[in-house]
Amino acid sequence: MLTTARPVPERSVVHAPVRERLDAWLLRCLASRIGRAPLRYALRRSVLSPPSVRPVATLRFRDRRALLGLVIDPETRFGDAYAEGRIEIEGDLVAALEAAYRALDARGRRPSVLSTAQGRHSRRRARWNAHRHYDLGDDFYRLWLDEQLVYTCAYYDPPGLDLERAQVAKLDHVCRKLGLTPGETVVEAGCGWGALALHMVREYGVQVRAYNVSHEQVAYARARAERERLSGRVEFLEEDYRGIRGRCDAFVSVGMLEHVGRDGFAPLAAVIRRCLDPDRGRGLLHAIGRDRPRPLNAWIRRRIFPGAYPPALGEIVAAVLEPAGQSVVDVENLRPHYARTLRDWRERFERAAAAGKVGFDERFRRAWRLYLAGSEAAFRTGSLQLFQILFAPSGGTALPWSRRPLYEGTGLSWSMPTS
Amino acid sequence: MLTTARPVPERSVVHAPVRERLDAWLLRCLASRIGRAPLRYALRRSVLSPPSVRPVATLRFRDRRALLGLVIDPETRFGDAYAEGRIEIEGDLVAALEAAYRALDARGRRPSVLSTAQGRHSRRRARWNAHRHYDLGDDFYRLWLDEQLVYTCAYYDPPGLDLERAQVAKLDHVCRKLGLTPGETVVEAGCGWGALALHMVREYGVQVRAYNVSHEQVAYARARAERERLSGRVEFLEEDYRGIRGRCDAFVSVGMLEHVGRDGFAPLAAVIRRCLDPDRGRGLLHAIGRDRPRPLNAWIRRRIFPGAYPPALGEIVAAVLEPAGQSVVDVENLRPHYARTLRDWRERFERAAAAGKVGFDERFRRAWRLYLAGSEAAFRTGSLQLFQILFAPSGGTALPWSRRPLYEGTGLSWSMPTS
Repeated sequence: MLTTARPVPERSVVHAPVRERLDAWLLRCLASRIGRAPLRYALRRSVLSPPSVRPVATLRFRDRRALLGLVIDPETRFGDAYAEGRIEIEGDLVAALEAAYRALDARGRRPSVLSTAQGRHSRRRARWNAHRHYDLGDDFYRLWLDEQLVYTCAYYDPPGLDLERAQVAKLDHVCRKLGLTPGETVVEAGCGWGALALHMVREYGVQVRAYNVSHEQVAYARARAERERLSGRVEFLEEDYRGIRGRCDAFVSVGMLEHVGRDGFAPLAAVIRRCLDPDRGRGLLHAIGRDRPRPLNAWIRRRIFPGAYPPALGEIVAAVLEPAGQSVVDVENLRPHYARTLRDWRERFERAAAAGKVGFDERFRRAWRLYLAGSEAAFRTGSLQLFQILFAPSGGTALPWSRRPLYEGTGLSWSMPTS
Repeated sequence: MLTTARPVPERSVVHAPVRERLDAWLLRCLASRIGRAPLRYALRRSVLSPPSVRPVATLRFRDRRALLGLVIDPETRFGDAYAEGRIEIEGDLVAALEAAYRALDARGRRPSVLSTAQGRHSRRRARWNAHRHYDLGDDFYRLWLDEQLVYTCAYYDPPGLDLERAQVAKLDHVCRKLGLTPGETVVEAGCGWGALALHMVREYGVQVRAYNVSHEQVAYARARAERERLSGRVEFLEEDYRGIRGRCDAFVSVGMLEHVGRDGFAPLAAVIRRCLDPDRGRGLLHAIGRDRPRPLNAWIRRRIFPGAYPPALGEIVAAVLEPAGQSVVDVENLRPHYARTLRDWRERFERAAAAGKVGFDERFRRAWRLYLAGSEAAFRTGSLQLFQILFAPSGGTALPWSRRPLYEGTGLSWSMPTS
């Protein structure tokens, strides 16, 4: 990982005090790169404490190379070095990451979007990207997701819900926003393990076509539909969203937009435009997003979610919904709920890891721990957002009068009052 | 008005049957420009009915010049010709306009944004623009607005509310979204006759600085504050939004964004950025908008709202809130409520006109009737939207957990749950 950095000899002819001065200097370099964060940095006997605040955690480097890598490129190098065990966080991992994000944000250390090559999202590439992350095996995800394997932001309303119920509350929140009524047709783009599709069919009596490029997820969803005797009303298609055909009353996509990349905005807009009934159609996009355009953390993009790009809300509206001919009806930012969801996932993950159930190697487990903690910190600091965007074709007459029914346990009523 | 059109002699040497053939041909030209609308067109003895549908109204031209003007430039010429009484709508005015808008929209007959010179919005120009519309006299507006002179979209929740109550419900909806608590400071940009500022002070115990460039409105608001013994807690400043200074807990602007023009987006963003407390601040923009960038109807811009530009939601987010460093928390589209508000205003206006109370000349009254009916049609057809956008500084920790309190009669709670 660190081959591009010029190696600093670990055991060299340099005298100990000189080595220590070098370590201390590198620690100062790093601290100055990160900015004013309540963090302590340590390498062997050299320790750098933050001035006049209590540190929330200590970043301890196992060797000088790891430290040097971070000085050169903190965003990319940190993840690999942590996964390799060459950096330890002594103290709360989320708090440490949160402190670092806030400090970096305050310094405006945001890489330019344009400088970040994202690669093209061909269908083959999209399939590979999904495979890399989602085909790690149901057994792995079952260890730390809820029982229905819903791998997107939950909705803790009321706040005391546990993860299982908060995921069901999310599924209902989505269905109620769409105001689904029995007999309607729904297209779902990116259906994961099928929980939302099956929930819509079972609880709202609709007919669903659900698309997903992950072979394992589609197989799982089909088996579950069979088991629950719902397969007559739901069709799981192993197919890219660009292959979606046919009309529907409602279009829904939960957690896919952040994977289509910027070159996917126009094709997605075309799909929404041709799918939705121009008069009574409506749709919902639920996606991780940003307050302004900015690439995803380089390490996450490389190691965890290849090809991912969480779009700014302005991009979603101007580059997806405008060309799709849609009118935005409602936007809800569920950022605090994703921070909570990630905490719940991580707690389950850690319990499973402590019980020796996670499998894979230590490097994988450490990478996963960092990904979950880092994502929680990103939602806590506002580096990431979670947008639920409800829309309907421009000029359509079916529109909800009020959002009140959502909070009275029924769904939005999609009809323009004639009065 | 029609001096740029080459005059067609009304009484000419042309024989009657030839004149009639010319009229019929011009009617067909107009019908083909507008597209498939259920409208009948008539000039003298020539009548053109829509094929195979019942017309909702008849556009009757008093003279050939009015018809020719419309054929050349329907968007601009219609308003003046209607105001001058050279076009009559026989049938429901709103239904006729709605039909025309839908037909024009279906044909994609949307003038390019770039081709429309908007003029610069200097402070002097902004003052003049406001004066043109808002300084027509309180007596005039009192005839058809609610008793508090709230000249923005009302909120009919529950749907049976009358206009007075729906305006109070709107003021409360705004205050509750902002989650105002006693002792907080609020800046209001573009305060109209002061109803919201006074409501916030009286009902929510906050301290308000409210800005407006309309001399008459500010004078009215100050007098009302005196009368209600609230002047110690509210300050009305006759000043452009660009002159807003000082920090506040909440920033609110209802019905101003559509007047600042595209060249006002950056200065408004700067104001929001410097106003809001980075941690506990929050703001709300309530504005007429669009589903995509598109200039305001040329006649409305020339005769009713000089300098106005209703921005697309994507523009508001990308050109105002992103540079302002804000995170979008919630967006609600109240389009159907503005259609209802406009209907209520127009009914009151017509009653006042029938009772001879409106004053001004017939041309003014007809122009105003058209403006109210046309705006209602624009909201009904989705040519215009009404966005309430709630936001908070990016990275702030104060965020509402759920929108539920809005529907339980309390306000949003702006605090990040620590759990």
